[in-house]
Amino acid sequence: MRVGYLQFNPRFGEVEENVRRALALLSGEEADLWVLPELFSTGYHFTSPQEARALAEPVPSGPTTQALLAWAGERGCHIAAGLAELAPEGVYNSAVLVGPQGLLLLYRKAHLFWREKENFLPGDTGFQVAEVGGVKVGLMVCFDHLFPEAARTLALKGAQIIAHPANLVLPGVAQLTTRVRALENRLYLVTANRTGEERRGGEVLRFTGQSQIVSPQGEVLASSTPQAEEAVVCEIDPELARQKRINPYNDLLSDRRLDLYFR
Amino acid sequence: MRVGYLQFNPRFGEVEENVRRALALLSGEEADLWVLPELFSTGYHFTSPQEARALAEPVPSGPTTQALLAWAGERGCHIAAGLAELAPEGVYNSAVLVGPQGLLLLYRKAHLFWREKENFLPGDTGFQVAEVGGVKVGLMVCFDHLFPEAARTLALKGAQIIAHPANLVLPGVAQLTTRVRALENRLYLVTANRTGEERRGGEVLRFTGQSQIVSPQGEVLASSTPQAEEAVVCEIDPELARQKRINPYNDLLSDRRLDLYFR
Repeated sequence: MRVGYLQFNPRFGEVEENVRRALALLSGEEADLWVLPELFSTGYHFTSPQEARALAEPVPSGPTTQALLAWAGERGCHIAAGLAELAPEGVYNSAVLVGPQGLLLLYRKAHLFWREKENFLPGDTGFQVAEVGGVKVGLMVCFDHLFPEAARTLALKGAQIIAHPANLVLPGVAQLTTRVRALENRLYLVTANRTGEERRGGEVLRFTGQSQIVSPQGEVLASSTPQAEEAVVCEIDPELARQKRINPYNDLLSDRRLDLYFR
Repeated sequence: MRVGYLQFNPRFGEVEENVRRALALLSGEEADLWVLPELFSTGYHFTSPQEARALAEPVPSGPTTQALLAWAGERGCHIAAGLAELAPEGVYNSAVLVGPQGLLLLYRKAHLFWREKENFLPGDTGFQVAEVGGVKVGLMVCFDHLFPEAARTLALKGAQIIAHPANLVLPGVAQLTTRVRALENRLYLVTANRTGEERRGGEVLRFTGQSQIVSPQGEVLASSTPQAEEAVVCEIDPELARQKRINPYNDLLSDRRLDLYFR
């Protein structure tokens, strides 16, 4: 199976151009599953809930999801991507998984970071998994990486690959945590981060790139620099992620001592 | 507060000599809290439950705990150390926390690794915390590091420092996971690993050293090579580990979405 990420610098508010340019960057490579950054079509740094609402789109009827669906249908591939979702009750920082069959997953970000709490509703969908060519793929978004319960929940639901759209600002942190999420759950993790900066409302946010694909052993199989805009693809064996037994005595899921844990 | 670890190569079965030598290695340094390796007084590689039983000791009446208690009493310090515990129902891979007041904690290893499952009973005490000079210290042992629920449970019980006696054989893994445990729970983590090798029952186990002290930001404050036998001390500010708020919007414990997690 070929999985890839797009590391990409969207221009704030230019949805049509961002979607067009993202798909153009993917066109030179082939993958069965692509992961795009968080909020890849709008940009990140909303300064009010009203601004988020003005750029958000319903899923799957909005133009971003429709463009992803059309592209996935033409190419026969799957895409996980983050976008601002307009729902009747408000706006979510969401991610979709789409394929030739249509929309497979809608995930609304559970752990909102910093001012996202002002501009988005907290996610209510939970951590979900869908099959892509017989392989179970789960979604989490950016800051979810710092909460081990998120990746653990996806692993318990059978995820072999976690697609992780991100807009990371802290250098080096998620590059470490995602290796450990992969190791402790024995699954692949594909982090698609963005690059560039956004100067809005008197504040500058710098995004840190360094997207990566990590193996169930926690090895970095592919990665990017902090700045490059690029599509990177890696051949993986998702069967390895079914095996939670790490030696004849230990299984990373069934060895857990639920009788002794607090939550 | 000064915390330290002893990286040390015990000789299998030579309990009296191991205890004497471990305390001698500590004598050149001063610390408020010392962490010694897992099974530091017996060695690790038991080939049968009978062999483990023959070397195990009751806690706190056995000679290893008594020697630690005496030394802690003389020096006015605290010691966390791993040892084989003889209980009426069998033998546990345990850790104690002792101080001038006496035995503060007895922890029985929850996640047994590899053949430990043949030679020890699974721990039944759960993850516990006690106060050392007003600072909350929790215990976990070796393989517990790979289960995020262990450190999380200690953090939820208020641990500011996790004392982590270990006998690690996989190079580099715990050095990564313990940084992430510290980061995701905002606490200090002191891993005391052993060195050397044990050839027993036709098998060779090589221990990997690289003990380390990690900050609540996941930085490595002190570390050792794979081979050195040494006592290493570091000044830390345990108040930093009370603060789970990482910015005005996010708190790493209260932001958790228990409504969305599986366990």
